[in-house]
Amino acid sequence: MESEQLYHRGYCRNSYNSIASASSDEELLDGAGVIMDFHTTEDDNLLDGDAASPGSNYAMSNGGGAPSSSTHLLDFLEEPIPGVGTYDDFHTIDWVREKCKDRERHRKINSKKKESAWEFTKSLYDAWSGWLVVTLTGLASGALAGLIDIAADWMNDLKEGVCLSALWFNHEQCCWTSNETTFAERDKCPQWKSWAELILGQAEGPGSYIMNYFMYIYWALSFAFLAVCLVKVFAPYACGSGIPEIKTILSGFIIRGYLGKWTLMIKTITLVLAVASGLSLGKEGPLVHVACCCGNIFSYLFPKYSKNEAKKREVLSAASAAGVSVAFGAPIGGVLFSLEEVSYYFPLKTLWRSFFAALVAAFVLRSINPFGNSRLVLFYVEYHTPWYLFELIPFILLGVFGGLWGAFFIKANIAWCRRRKSTRFGRYPVLEVILVAAITAVVAFPNPYTRKNTSELIKELFTDCGPLESSQLCQYRSQMNGTKAFSDDQPAGPGVYSAMWQLCLALIFKIIMTIFTFGLKVPSGLFIPSMAIGAIAGRIVGIAMEQLAYYHHDWFLFKEWCEVGADCITPGLYAMVGAAACLGGVTRMTVSLVIIVFELTGGLEYIVPLMAAVMTSKWVGDAFGREGIYEAHIRLNGYPFLDSKEEFTHTTLAREVMRPRRNDPPLAVLTQDDLTVEELQGIINETSYNGFPVIVSKESQRLVGFALRRDITIAIENARRKQEGIVLNSRVYFTQHAPTLPADSPRPLKLRSILDMSPFTVTDHTPMEIVVDIFRKLGLRQCLVTHNGIVLGIITKKNILEHLEELKQQSPPLVTSPAPLHTEALGWSCNVGPLWELSPTSVQSPFWTQRESHEGPDIKAQLLRHGLSPVLDLNLH
Amino acid sequence: MESEQLYHRGYCRNSYNSIASASSDEELLDGAGVIMDFHTTEDDNLLDGDAASPGSNYAMSNGGGAPSSSTHLLDFLEEPIPGVGTYDDFHTIDWVREKCKDRERHRKINSKKKESAWEFTKSLYDAWSGWLVVTLTGLASGALAGLIDIAADWMNDLKEGVCLSALWFNHEQCCWTSNETTFAERDKCPQWKSWAELILGQAEGPGSYIMNYFMYIYWALSFAFLAVCLVKVFAPYACGSGIPEIKTILSGFIIRGYLGKWTLMIKTITLVLAVASGLSLGKEGPLVHVACCCGNIFSYLFPKYSKNEAKKREVLSAASAAGVSVAFGAPIGGVLFSLEEVSYYFPLKTLWRSFFAALVAAFVLRSINPFGNSRLVLFYVEYHTPWYLFELIPFILLGVFGGLWGAFFIKANIAWCRRRKSTRFGRYPVLEVILVAAITAVVAFPNPYTRKNTSELIKELFTDCGPLESSQLCQYRSQMNGTKAFSDDQPAGPGVYSAMWQLCLALIFKIIMTIFTFGLKVPSGLFIPSMAIGAIAGRIVGIAMEQLAYYHHDWFLFKEWCEVGADCITPGLYAMVGAAACLGGVTRMTVSLVIIVFELTGGLEYIVPLMAAVMTSKWVGDAFGREGIYEAHIRLNGYPFLDSKEEFTHTTLAREVMRPRRNDPPLAVLTQDDLTVEELQGIINETSYNGFPVIVSKESQRLVGFALRRDITIAIENARRKQEGIVLNSRVYFTQHAPTLPADSPRPLKLRSILDMSPFTVTDHTPMEIVVDIFRKLGLRQCLVTHNGIVLGIITKKNILEHLEELKQQSPPLVTSPAPLHTEALGWSCNVGPLWELSPTSVQSPFWTQRESHEGPDIKAQLLRHGLSPVLDLNLH
Repeated sequence: MESEQLYHRGYCRNSYNSIASASSDEELLDGAGVIMDFHTTEDDNLLDGDAASPGSNYAMSNGGGAPSSSTHLLDFLEEPIPGVGTYDDFHTIDWVREKCKDRERHRKINSKKKESAWEFTKSLYDAWSGWLVVTLTGLASGALAGLIDIAADWMNDLKEGVCLSALWFNHEQCCWTSNETTFAERDKCPQWKSWAELILGQAEGPGSYIMNYFMYIYWALSFAFLAVCLVKVFAPYACGSGIPEIKTILSGFIIRGYLGKWTLMIKTITLVLAVASGLSLGKEGPLVHVACCCGNIFSYLFPKYSKNEAKKREVLSAASAAGVSVAFGAPIGGVLFSLEEVSYYFPLKTLWRSFFAALVAAFVLRSINPFGNSRLVLFYVEYHTPWYLFELIPFILLGVFGGLWGAFFIKANIAWCRRRKSTRFGRYPVLEVILVAAITAVVAFPNPYTRKNTSELIKELFTDCGPLESSQLCQYRSQMNGTKAFSDDQPAGPGVYSAMWQLCLALIFKIIMTIFTFGLKVPSGLFIPSMAIGAIAGRIVGIAMEQLAYYHHDWFLFKEWCEVGADCITPGLYAMVGAAACLGGVTRMTVSLVIIVFELTGGLEYIVPLMAAVMTSKWVGDAFGREGIYEAHIRLNGYPFLDSKEEFTHTTLAREVMRPRRNDPPLAVLTQDDLTVEELQGIINETSYNGFPVIVSKESQRLVGFALRRDITIAIENARRKQEGIVLNSRVYFTQHAPTLPADSPRPLKLRSILDMSPFTVTDHTPMEIVVDIFRKLGLRQCLVTHNGIVLGIITKKNILEHLEELKQQSPPLVTSPAPLHTEALGWSCNVGPLWELSPTSVQSPFWTQRESHEGPDIKAQLLRHGLSPVLDLNLH
Repeated sequence: MESEQLYHRGYCRNSYNSIASASSDEELLDGAGVIMDFHTTEDDNLLDGDAASPGSNYAMSNGGGAPSSSTHLLDFLEEPIPGVGTYDDFHTIDWVREKCKDRERHRKINSKKKESAWEFTKSLYDAWSGWLVVTLTGLASGALAGLIDIAADWMNDLKEGVCLSALWFNHEQCCWTSNETTFAERDKCPQWKSWAELILGQAEGPGSYIMNYFMYIYWALSFAFLAVCLVKVFAPYACGSGIPEIKTILSGFIIRGYLGKWTLMIKTITLVLAVASGLSLGKEGPLVHVACCCGNIFSYLFPKYSKNEAKKREVLSAASAAGVSVAFGAPIGGVLFSLEEVSYYFPLKTLWRSFFAALVAAFVLRSINPFGNSRLVLFYVEYHTPWYLFELIPFILLGVFGGLWGAFFIKANIAWCRRRKSTRFGRYPVLEVILVAAITAVVAFPNPYTRKNTSELIKELFTDCGPLESSQLCQYRSQMNGTKAFSDDQPAGPGVYSAMWQLCLALIFKIIMTIFTFGLKVPSGLFIPSMAIGAIAGRIVGIAMEQLAYYHHDWFLFKEWCEVGADCITPGLYAMVGAAACLGGVTRMTVSLVIIVFELTGGLEYIVPLMAAVMTSKWVGDAFGREGIYEAHIRLNGYPFLDSKEEFTHTTLAREVMRPRRNDPPLAVLTQDDLTVEELQGIINETSYNGFPVIVSKESQRLVGFALRRDITIAIENARRKQEGIVLNSRVYFTQHAPTLPADSPRPLKLRSILDMSPFTVTDHTPMEIVVDIFRKLGLRQCLVTHNGIVLGIITKKNILEHLEELKQQSPPLVTSPAPLHTEALGWSCNVGPLWELSPTSVQSPFWTQRESHEGPDIKAQLLRHGLSPVLDLNLH
């Protein structure tokens, strides 16, 4: 029961204002006005009368006892009460109710359709609004992605120099007009001036190196500082990758402003700055957040989506597909990513629309052509040689590496994030970002592989050595001798050896920096750094294999497959497989990852190596803990997210999980016709539950329905304001007809319209695995527990999450045993979790209750073994 | 209530033997021995003790009142009763129960894992069996698809002639060794002899034409006769495309033998024969059936899958992905097809395994290389020119054509199939096949476009005219003048004009024949004929556009986009878009269709035309009736399939759908502790329901649990055989402890282990849309309806389907208003539906009850409007 109270405190009292004002981080208040501003968009809709009507429709179709014809529905009803059926911030939505609301709305529009041409137009608009909103989302996502790509490219090159002929050109564009055509010298054209050339007037020598070094660090720090300040002041929700929060939102949680227009603006700008600052982060994850912001904002143009939380989430699913589509140029991969990774409720209609949004976004991006290669991504590659069966061994080894890296990264990053939350260090986010940016810049500059943009590094590593390739990685000895027969395996030249060393250093650098970077208060994606680490490792393995095949071509392995001098090994393919493996290890994506990387190459042949590596990486990673980085961050922040991938493998029954527990006060219930307004208000004020079961009478505790706290409060206020004769001792009834009352009693108040007459119930003997399944599949908020028709208790989503956490602590997984979340309390954080934590009523994470230490689950299990639990004894007839 | 009885009759009494023996079609009995044989595979598993244990585990975890530790579970239990928890043929499975069984099995294996090395090995085998079974399925599907491709090719060419140098070569292979290299003469090599050459000794002239004509018809009829006889005698389930039945099976229905080894063998052989016979059918749909047979057969190697119907369906989902993968060479499309079109329960784990199976199958097929082009499909194409925006107009027109064709085809084909079922014509399936084959062959031979294999026709239509193309379709005038500049639009030559006429005739022919062919008693797919129709129409439109662009290049449309002499229009692309549109119109597939066709070309550019056409085609088709051909056939055959795509848009409540209805006898219930064995047997014998709610007592009708008829019967029999002291007047109790009995009473029988203590309940006020949602998402078999904790009635899946059918008849859709299914009764049919119809107890389709004509839904609605319905009055306190 205590947990229920906490639940309420964490959710309800943390309405927007209390969050912002109660925040102990005073700096947050600087931007409060602005934050307020972007919150109001959503809040307006919450409180006006229009928004409320769908909610009351639900009550109609539910509680009205109406016959089947929809046209007669309205006759039976009182006025809809404004506000009934809406949600507070940080609350979980009721999917079933939302879907009912939408069907009711649809029926209404359909029945009116034939009345007039105007109504018909409205119904057409309604029918097409789904396509319109995904089209708009696709267009906007594609355009923003193109903008971000171009801006990030330009600002990234700004760290090295400027284009004198046209300041808005980046290095490559600047040199397009140059006459220098040798590929080695391609990047050195007279129009492009490095900072040393500009300031010192010399391009070579130690002085200019130091000058360039200094300017590189200067720009990196400036960008990083600007990014973190913008995030901090204007839109704290804009930091991080956003995918954990989007997953939570899509699973049916409300975080107002997380997908608002301020978040969109600030995230777009700071994403460019963060990428340009050279930090070890990518723009792919944040692009999904940006696309979801677009989807959310456009959904406000269409009442079908703006007023229904479930429908809005369909748009967001499509938007996240569009986001991945533009991030990787992979429309199909984007749809599967949305399906596999982020979406919770994904009907087929959404699949089709997601696909459409992803395509639209991809085509807009292609028309913008930010990379000048008519491709959607910088690192599009084509390989021309097949792979051989024995190569599966190194591919699988890369998979093992990816899995190990993923497991290590998740552990280390979560440990660091927890430390950041629990220590004073977390209080200085700006300092932290500057520090990390400074270290990154200082260490990155001397190594050419870390100095360049990570996407460009990946491109170079993916690309196979062709005759036109000037990269150090391609300095094979035969090339040095002047022969250009690039289709063969060749002995490596000194360039390759030095590149190998630099790559090894870059690998170590990337591994360390990524751990400290992900979770900073700037927009930071994880895809690109993970892929870079995998690509470096893969390229190293690939070159090693190539040299092995060259020098030991008489080994039985190579002899059979690989003719002397023939091109057996494609080091670029190894880099790609490694990238996929590392990304798979970190995110635990499977199909969508393979499809995304497949779409980068376009060859069906390379799917098998990819699959082998990704499968291995997932299995290896899962052996150390089944959570991907996003699930880990969701758990770290205590979001109420019921993962549909995780299997519930325990044998507990519903009665062991339900509230009230043994020592709790009895379940707070309402009787259907013998409470007065005053008594009802008393119950509501004394308790803090979100809802109350309504029963027949105190004697026969049979269930009638379920009433939400919010709805009761609104309905009573509304009645006292509008209905005459409602006084404190008016009788409240939930039945169809008013109870027989003494002649002098005041006018009774009928609350049937807010009563949910079809609450979900399970019996106390239902195995929890079934209950969890019901919650996941139907998207419930709560479920009542009955025994032989009598109400015993209630199970909420949060009770289930608590229970899962308890079970996890009883039987810790093989390696990771995450500490309980009690310790995290202080500091301004990137995530929304800590915002709750700062609310005065709960210094602990609001979703996890204090454990009743005097009654561990073991004791309860023992009690249960000796018959019915005390809770049951209290309640049974 | 009557419907419930019919339900039972249709399901239960139709156990295998009664179906086979009661069949009024005596010819079926010829093969009964054989059919018996392929049924026993599955039946064995039903009755032995092993199969039963998972079922009782469910009862354990459910009814045992056991504490949370799984190791203590077994202490509480009686011996598991063999047979409890299995299903009869033609029954719906309970997904929730099956999933619980699987989790219990998994827990058991996991808890034993550390006991010994052997147990550890077993647990590893168990963990890997999922991957093993999909790998095997993929291998087998790929191999069978290759075999079918090669055999069908060879037999198809046999209609025209033989290869004298090697009889087992088809025409193309025969001529590979030929020295003739001109492309026009490619097909005429000395080794290949047409029948006229062989028999008459002359290759030209009217005599040889007639001889070839005769031999063509002769072979076509022979193949068709052989195919239909094999199907009829050995495996009646092998006919048709199989996709409607697979959809039904995947939704949780049991049709034993439908995916058995005899079906597999006969379907593989007859598929080759049917394709070779020249009938207007394809092998793509049946390949899905073949792959599912492989999946089902391999799943018997693994107890995890053979003993759990829900897990087996995961394998079948993967298998259907593999089937489409080899049918179209589209692994990703296959997975999405499985997800979008056939699967019901598709968790992410299945997605990943389906993808794997699809890939394995594709690679096996590629290694077999049946088409000699290293491609997975005959009609792989590559286009080299882009498309222009104005071309969207003809593409959308093709979409409209596809939608119209789809709607027309579905209406016509269903009408014809219904006629076949209801008239005497359906009694002579062999004759029908021969007749259709004869007409097809006679009409097809004179036209070169219908004479050739449909796949080859599609290939020719898809392929763009290149300099090497010798087809009549490419006889442009410039080629005739000797210029070979094929990259330009050109004026059409006389060859093109005559080809256009022939194509128009072929279009009409295909349209008519396909309607009569789909539903014949041979394996018959719909994909290829639909695609052929679309490809013909598309190619005609494409050539028309090309000529338009050539002769009117100064039109404002063409002027802007299309330079004079440049190659603007790719007629092959039009053919492809048309094929997608027609297939979309017939099947109403969306994403999967676009992806499948995308995988044929590999160019992302062409997705937009495809999407435009497929979307238009779906919308146009949906305007005439929302069902695709598979859903229409499911409804025609009365399968219990709850379509998850169809929205439930009505406002009925659960109490209007539940049984018993107003005039029915009261709900048959069992009391928890005051029945004797004799009374219980009496209730079971008097009624025919599949299950009974168990209540506290006759006075307080509160719900305790639910017991299945089959389980009760088995448990009583088992008890009387094994437990001493169980006599007819022994008391039966479902409670934890025995009731207090007089001293001289016989030993009571405890049946708690078969009691489902967590039956699903909804309140009587629950809107049916929520109930339908619960049934779909959780895969329920039945759901109890309560009012204030008291049992009122029961809703089964079939009640919902009946209700949907009733509602559909009240408000018929725009164009299609399918007649009620009462009239269909006679004849041996391709589908399993009629097998039930032939059972003596139900001459009507078993799933649809006789409507209570004295109490139409309108009357009921009126009654309801005036308060509670009579049913409720009878039952309330």
